[in-house]
Amino acid sequence: MELSNILVPIGGIVALLFATFLFLNVKRQSPGNKKMQELSSGIREGAMAFLISEYKVLIVFVVVVAALLFIASYIPGSSMHWGLSLAFIAGAIFSAVSGNIGMRMATMANARTAEGTKKHLSKGLSIAFSSGAVMGMCVVGLGVLGIFSLFTLFHNYIDLGSIISTNILFGFGFGASSIALFARVGGGIYTKSADVGADLVGKVEAGIPEDDPRNPAVIADQVGDNVGDVAGMGADLFESYVDSIIATMALAAIIGTFFITTSSIDKNIIIPWLLESPTQSDILNYVMLPLIVAAMGILSAIIGTLVVIFGKGKNIYGALRNSLFIATILTAAFGGVATWYLIGRLEPFYAMLAGLIGGIIIGLSTEYFTSEKRKPAQGIAEASKTGPATVIIQGLQVGMISTIIPIIAVVAAMIFAFELSGFYGVALSAVGMLSILGVSLATDCYGPVADNAQGISEMAGMGREVRERTEQLDAVGNTTAAMGKGFAIGSAAITSLALIFTYMLTANILLENQGQPPLILELSDPYLVSGIFIGAMLPFVFAALTMGAVGKAAYAMVEEVRYQFKKFDLLKSDKNKPDYERCVKISTNRALKAMIIPSLMAVVSPIVVGIVLKPTGLGGLLIGSISTGFLLAIFLANSGGAWDNAKKYIESGNLGGKGSNAHKATIIGDTVGDPCKDTSGPSLNILIKLMSIVSLVFLPLIIALNI
Amino acid sequence: MELSNILVPIGGIVALLFATFLFLNVKRQSPGNKKMQELSSGIREGAMAFLISEYKVLIVFVVVVAALLFIASYIPGSSMHWGLSLAFIAGAIFSAVSGNIGMRMATMANARTAEGTKKHLSKGLSIAFSSGAVMGMCVVGLGVLGIFSLFTLFHNYIDLGSIISTNILFGFGFGASSIALFARVGGGIYTKSADVGADLVGKVEAGIPEDDPRNPAVIADQVGDNVGDVAGMGADLFESYVDSIIATMALAAIIGTFFITTSSIDKNIIIPWLLESPTQSDILNYVMLPLIVAAMGILSAIIGTLVVIFGKGKNIYGALRNSLFIATILTAAFGGVATWYLIGRLEPFYAMLAGLIGGIIIGLSTEYFTSEKRKPAQGIAEASKTGPATVIIQGLQVGMISTIIPIIAVVAAMIFAFELSGFYGVALSAVGMLSILGVSLATDCYGPVADNAQGISEMAGMGREVRERTEQLDAVGNTTAAMGKGFAIGSAAITSLALIFTYMLTANILLENQGQPPLILELSDPYLVSGIFIGAMLPFVFAALTMGAVGKAAYAMVEEVRYQFKKFDLLKSDKNKPDYERCVKISTNRALKAMIIPSLMAVVSPIVVGIVLKPTGLGGLLIGSISTGFLLAIFLANSGGAWDNAKKYIESGNLGGKGSNAHKATIIGDTVGDPCKDTSGPSLNILIKLMSIVSLVFLPLIIALNI
Repeated sequence: MELSNILVPIGGIVALLFATFLFLNVKRQSPGNKKMQELSSGIREGAMAFLISEYKVLIVFVVVVAALLFIASYIPGSSMHWGLSLAFIAGAIFSAVSGNIGMRMATMANARTAEGTKKHLSKGLSIAFSSGAVMGMCVVGLGVLGIFSLFTLFHNYIDLGSIISTNILFGFGFGASSIALFARVGGGIYTKSADVGADLVGKVEAGIPEDDPRNPAVIADQVGDNVGDVAGMGADLFESYVDSIIATMALAAIIGTFFITTSSIDKNIIIPWLLESPTQSDILNYVMLPLIVAAMGILSAIIGTLVVIFGKGKNIYGALRNSLFIATILTAAFGGVATWYLIGRLEPFYAMLAGLIGGIIIGLSTEYFTSEKRKPAQGIAEASKTGPATVIIQGLQVGMISTIIPIIAVVAAMIFAFELSGFYGVALSAVGMLSILGVSLATDCYGPVADNAQGISEMAGMGREVRERTEQLDAVGNTTAAMGKGFAIGSAAITSLALIFTYMLTANILLENQGQPPLILELSDPYLVSGIFIGAMLPFVFAALTMGAVGKAAYAMVEEVRYQFKKFDLLKSDKNKPDYERCVKISTNRALKAMIIPSLMAVVSPIVVGIVLKPTGLGGLLIGSISTGFLLAIFLANSGGAWDNAKKYIESGNLGGKGSNAHKATIIGDTVGDPCKDTSGPSLNILIKLMSIVSLVFLPLIIALNI
Repeated sequence: MELSNILVPIGGIVALLFATFLFLNVKRQSPGNKKMQELSSGIREGAMAFLISEYKVLIVFVVVVAALLFIASYIPGSSMHWGLSLAFIAGAIFSAVSGNIGMRMATMANARTAEGTKKHLSKGLSIAFSSGAVMGMCVVGLGVLGIFSLFTLFHNYIDLGSIISTNILFGFGFGASSIALFARVGGGIYTKSADVGADLVGKVEAGIPEDDPRNPAVIADQVGDNVGDVAGMGADLFESYVDSIIATMALAAIIGTFFITTSSIDKNIIIPWLLESPTQSDILNYVMLPLIVAAMGILSAIIGTLVVIFGKGKNIYGALRNSLFIATILTAAFGGVATWYLIGRLEPFYAMLAGLIGGIIIGLSTEYFTSEKRKPAQGIAEASKTGPATVIIQGLQVGMISTIIPIIAVVAAMIFAFELSGFYGVALSAVGMLSILGVSLATDCYGPVADNAQGISEMAGMGREVRERTEQLDAVGNTTAAMGKGFAIGSAAITSLALIFTYMLTANILLENQGQPPLILELSDPYLVSGIFIGAMLPFVFAALTMGAVGKAAYAMVEEVRYQFKKFDLLKSDKNKPDYERCVKISTNRALKAMIIPSLMAVVSPIVVGIVLKPTGLGGLLIGSISTGFLLAIFLANSGGAWDNAKKYIESGNLGGKGSNAHKATIIGDTVGDPCKDTSGPSLNILIKLMSIVSLVFLPLIIALNI
């Protein structure tokens, strides 16, 4: 116990120190010539402009929700604690800070990566990856420190019967969710509306190349990569990371509650092998285990990161894969030791391992179904012979079929973890899957940096050799980004499962405390079935709304670009410069406006269903939404990824190459896939986690209203 | 009781007599000139060729499954009755016979409709609708008679503890399912592969018009309409119809079991208001009620049908709507009286009404989201301004958003019915929804007949006036076909819900009989959750497989048409005639081969999951597959319908009309939508019902294996 209290904060602090070291190291690199610096700072300013606009809305949102949480804690019988409100604010701030730093870093690293690539490919890789690792380390460091501090502050978990401390931690998760909502959903709408808008007028109408500096939307497009893929991905995984840890801690704390209050709830379901009467320090060890595993993961991730940064090889994909591989093995080894030391048995470790392996399988499956080197994407490319319609049909098929392996992986990990360590094991498997986040997020965020570097080298005219090298970086980045998406979806699903099991037990404890019969979530209850049906429907509606939002925002961008082309005569003379800022502003405003309805839906529907269809219906809603949310997210992300790479496959000279009819057909596929893979698909992660955490936070209130 | 025993068979016989009357009446009409007769008999022969090939495979399938069922009834401890095997064969034969008659009629009516239209629009309508009504009446008549005979034969429902008679009836449903599988899935693959194959080479490559007799695939295309939309739709709804009746009877019989065996299972959940100890004749009344309602529905449907047949108005859509409207009101009135007479209270009647209204709401919602007169389809047409990609994205959105109303309608009907009459009420609401099937199926099947008539008038060169009239018939047929699809999906969902509630109770009775604890389908059981996840995945995989099958079969057709164009020099000289038969044969063989894997998946997965994840996991599988199956089916059907009508909207002169870029963009949308709305979407109905009925039939075996 003493050791945990030291190890965990040390882990968090080391992560932040390492992030600082990397940050300074990247900053030290040459930012290239003036043109490159100009472009880079244009992107940075645009990205910051988005963040600032986002913060303006966010502050209102956070303050209002925090106030509501505070007030709710004084509603008689609700048993919500005022600390929830504080934890909520902390979660929001911690997530926002890590996103902000990550984005600053990414937008600083793009020109430096391009410049570094001039010297050597591995130099460019090192810079791009370092910048991604800054985000990764901030996320895990701030996540661990945030949870640990709150837990220490409200450390009355054991004399309760009301599990205050974990309930308060849910507030932290809720805060993180709110940022993720804005960053992933808002960011997702932003990035695609800018991209589609820029392409429709630039590439299609005016016939100028992608990333042409005459296109007023070109900076907004580059900003979008950072907003969506860096800040959005970071906030999404920050949320998964802290949620998985919190759920595990909550389940352990519930065990503590059980043994003190002599509850009638079946204890085996939480941890089957638990001793008859664990001591307080036993329980505390169970509570601390996920944090320790996280701390171990941080150390492993640092080592994995160093492999890439100091590597000199030419095989970029190999370097990235090796770093993940090393981090995984180290985490497994450290995690095993820690578990044995803290708990005295290895079942929880195996559960964790199941999650770790499940995550890797999902990543590999995504890679298979989307890579241009594999059959599925090549099959889509083949279908282009008979035109765009068959490209679309084939892509839909690939996406739907690609759901099999991830579902089986999650189910197998869950069953395995449950058999070994009950619900506690399921939650731990989520922790395991996310434990190497420090390095896996670095791999994800490296992608958009490489993409930006490629864009800058193009716009700054850095010559063929540099362009070819940055293209190489970018191509690998596309693959890792696709894998990262699969991983993010899988981890969202298993984290949500852990949250829903926590929901059930928490509900029963709350009901028992109030002398009520426990919550029975029986499938023979039509209210539960109704909840499942409605829950299953919400991801479809959410995906449609986010897709629609992209369309509307893109349309505004199209109008603006056309207007500027005319007003400044950009295409024929180079006297005037385009007004990049206005385009950035349009994307920002439209994206933030367009996310209001889907966001409200995500926050409000669990509360409404909880009141109308009772906590039973809400349980159904959660499981229904997790299952279709998971499936739809994979379907949309993989269809989109496969369409994208089918196009790339043709562009690299197959089936007639660029400009052929086959190419045109795959461009249509790619355009359809864009909002699927970058907006609607990833947004679903947020939906399912947010609904679970909202349900947990408001559960006391819902129960109070239903009695 | 006495009265029921008379009324029910009378209802069934009257339906068959009425069908005979209509059949003879249509046959009496002039089949037109020689050219028309030739075309019509070509289509008929092609359709029959498909049926005969189908039967060859079917006979093997039915004999094997029947033998397995027979053997399974002798496995010690399985408590399956040998009568299941007999009922299975009966279900298969009854469904096949009604499909066969319906198809004969439809392929006989097409030329007659075209010829009738020459005289008067209402004459054509009358013939086309009459032919549809033949199918409708055969389905309801044979359905009711089949169930009634089996029930009378195995009439030992009350002295049991093993609910033999209803268990045997499930065999009838399983038989019907098998035919539906072949007709809907095989037929769906057939129809789209022929359609897509004919269009790709004819319209796109050779530039000849649709329905051009030089195209060798043109007859296969016409045959496809009958195979998919007449026989497929008929078998699909035959299955829903008998399943809903059987489920209701089973639930009533379970009540009987409860009161005799003093079971510990909560009786309120089945029929909350039931007297303390109902008499045998009370129970029998509950058992007979759905059959009586069905009989009343038959009489109402006949009256509704006559309204169209003897109508003289010009408003086709109005006439069809009125007939549905009249049938609905009459069914409601008769149903209310019958319920009051048999049961002595009206709650079951209200439950039935909830289903009836729910079905109508789903139909109207489908109409809204797919009609060319409404915003959604017009919005897709608007999106064509920015090319095919936006058409696709917009269509995906429309499909996803369109899930809201059907889900809410089904949930509301279920909750309402459950609150009033428990599970029995839920099953009755499915019966209510399907009670007007005699006339609603006529409305569905009228569509393909009108479509064929239109094709024949085109191919036989019957002149502009006739063509315009048949076009009018065809346009309305498209709308009613879309509504019919929505209705078929909704009824499949609620029928499956009734089946799954029956599954739960049956499992508990079987377990109790064997001294086992009851089945607990608690959401806190990871096996149940795993089942839900896997179940939710299966519709995605099934949809992908059926979509892929269309692609493969269409490709074979493309090759054949190209080959014939070359070999017979069809495009330049008219010396040779195309070999229509070979194309029909190719579609037939490919479709039947392509359906093997998806079909096996549907039959085998519940059994495998039941054994591996236990009956608990199987319960999850069913609810998971119903929820996503329902959602995906609506999504695919409505996206497809809306794309189709967006194209039609432009073809009728909007946004540039035929030949414009906008038109080309919507053609791509329509092609994508074709397998969605005519193959994958409707096939999902079969998947969810088949998996439910397979689970019910094999439940005794699964339980025996799990003990």
